[in-house]
Amino acid sequence: MEDHIVFDAATPVLDLLDQRLLPVEEKRFLCHTVSEACYAIQTMVVRGAPAIGVSAAFACALAVREVQHAPDWRTALDAALTTIAAARPTAVNLSWAVRQMRTLWKEAEQDKAVTPDELFALFSQKASAMQAEDIASCRAIGQASLELVHPNDCILTHCNAGALATAGYGTALGVVRAAWEAGLNISVIADETRPLLQGARLTAWELHRDGIPVTLACDNSCACLMSQNKVSFVVVGADRIAANGDTANKIGTYGVAIMAKHFHIPFYVAAPLSTIDPALADGSLIPIEQRAAEEVTHINGRAIAPDVPAYNFAFDVTPNELITAIITDRGVLRPPYTESIARLFA
Amino acid sequence: MEDHIVFDAATPVLDLLDQRLLPVEEKRFLCHTVSEACYAIQTMVVRGAPAIGVSAAFACALAVREVQHAPDWRTALDAALTTIAAARPTAVNLSWAVRQMRTLWKEAEQDKAVTPDELFALFSQKASAMQAEDIASCRAIGQASLELVHPNDCILTHCNAGALATAGYGTALGVVRAAWEAGLNISVIADETRPLLQGARLTAWELHRDGIPVTLACDNSCACLMSQNKVSFVVVGADRIAANGDTANKIGTYGVAIMAKHFHIPFYVAAPLSTIDPALADGSLIPIEQRAAEEVTHINGRAIAPDVPAYNFAFDVTPNELITAIITDRGVLRPPYTESIARLFA
Repeated sequence: MEDHIVFDAATPVLDLLDQRLLPVEEKRFLCHTVSEACYAIQTMVVRGAPAIGVSAAFACALAVREVQHAPDWRTALDAALTTIAAARPTAVNLSWAVRQMRTLWKEAEQDKAVTPDELFALFSQKASAMQAEDIASCRAIGQASLELVHPNDCILTHCNAGALATAGYGTALGVVRAAWEAGLNISVIADETRPLLQGARLTAWELHRDGIPVTLACDNSCACLMSQNKVSFVVVGADRIAANGDTANKIGTYGVAIMAKHFHIPFYVAAPLSTIDPALADGSLIPIEQRAAEEVTHINGRAIAPDVPAYNFAFDVTPNELITAIITDRGVLRPPYTESIARLFA
Repeated sequence: MEDHIVFDAATPVLDLLDQRLLPVEEKRFLCHTVSEACYAIQTMVVRGAPAIGVSAAFACALAVREVQHAPDWRTALDAALTTIAAARPTAVNLSWAVRQMRTLWKEAEQDKAVTPDELFALFSQKASAMQAEDIASCRAIGQASLELVHPNDCILTHCNAGALATAGYGTALGVVRAAWEAGLNISVIADETRPLLQGARLTAWELHRDGIPVTLACDNSCACLMSQNKVSFVVVGADRIAANGDTANKIGTYGVAIMAKHFHIPFYVAAPLSTIDPALADGSLIPIEQRAAEEVTHINGRAIAPDVPAYNFAFDVTPNELITAIITDRGVLRPPYTESIARLFA
């Protein structure tokens, strides 16, 4: 599953597998404009911090084509990049990817003025390189995690930190895939992950396609399953990790971490370096997106509740003291994270 | 809301509000036979331990009418009562209600043979009395709880332990209603309670109808809301309480209790005496119903997941050490529950 984000530079078009429709339909969603790409990110046609980062990088290339005939294309491009970076607030990979493009642009114009054609080529190549690097990062996370996994482990994961959430292979599901490929005979419990059911719709679908044993569970059955010794360890992805290891991830992650601690079960976060935001001292500084109440009160367009307000925080922040280890593409980080993360960025 | 279980002895018919269709439709489900009443209990037309108990009591009256012309009507009735008691395994109120009817029958036949007409009248009257007593019990629970509630408290509840789960008024929602009626200006967070969404469909609907402020939340947002100091205390109902206070209740209750402990938030169980099963030493002996995977993998008849297995334990058992107090119709019980429960049954 490395073809869910495809960029055709000739058209140009960013061609995405529409994750909103999975597993019932496999349809593509085509973005010809920055506006379409931002819509795709906001409505979660594409989601998952690394996948958003790569998509945003390709959207930057689309932006160059869109503004190339504008009288002041540089100002227009600058505005477009700002718009892309602001599409969603929590995942740091989005602003990180756009920042990479800005750096590239600045470097290109250091000696001489660059043309839109030249910049489009630079952006397209850079985005493709980021896509390839992300897959390599996921595989490195998987390899690094092997020291933590035992034969016949049953791995609980929350939301989807799989191939669909990255350029391919996955972070949390990279851990699962590496263990499976190593012949460790692992199995997975996928939390369904309300309200948008990424666990039921995406994680279960990915693993089922790959022939890895997966059992679906409602989010609220976690304590019951842990108390029955059905969970060997938990691994989740991350949308942003602060300098002290506090981790923003899909709503519900915090609760799973508390329950893992209660039952003395290891709780791991799997993420590439690009998800760590060393500029933020701790998790209280991570902006948390709140989404429409209708995502909670309606399923498939049909009301499941009366007309009452609903909380819909898209993410929560798990405090570092609940995290047993952070599995990165540069190896496994252990507490105290302020030190192990600082060493990584030194 | 005391008319969701109506018995018309003349027909006879057990006339239930079909809770499966709420809040979208308000339709009645009519049970003329034991088989229809058992179907209603099994498919959750009516659910909630006390409501199941009262419905089962009326089903016993239906059973008398159904067998009255059988050659050996006593044997047929005995079998029918056994069927009713086995409709669902976890809620003790079901077997408790049928046992009450058996005792009544035995007493009636002590001196002389009873006719089906006489027994039908006895059963009908007893079931109606149980219905009235259950409402009185709920109101007593509400009054007993007032010592625990403070002005402006925000009360988190899981599943529906409301009027719809009882003969009326509710156990956990009896606590809410009593506080509201006492002018304490409380508000409620209703966990949606997957897979069957009793919190979203029933608790939110009940409270909204009564004008009590309620905000819906996905089950997995509990830790996030507690960490933001949005929850003053938790109160839930119960399907069966063992002699040591271990409490079976809707799946997810155990996790909420662990999170409440983590955040030092009081966790209360509200239940009438009939929900306590002093014959069971602890919660490990409570039979836990497992329901069809389709309840998890499908919503409104539409698949939300690929064809994978799914856990669907209907209940979990919260250990007594996580329960701050048990609020009964005979007052508030405190740990150690083995002693406080024994005193209640002495």
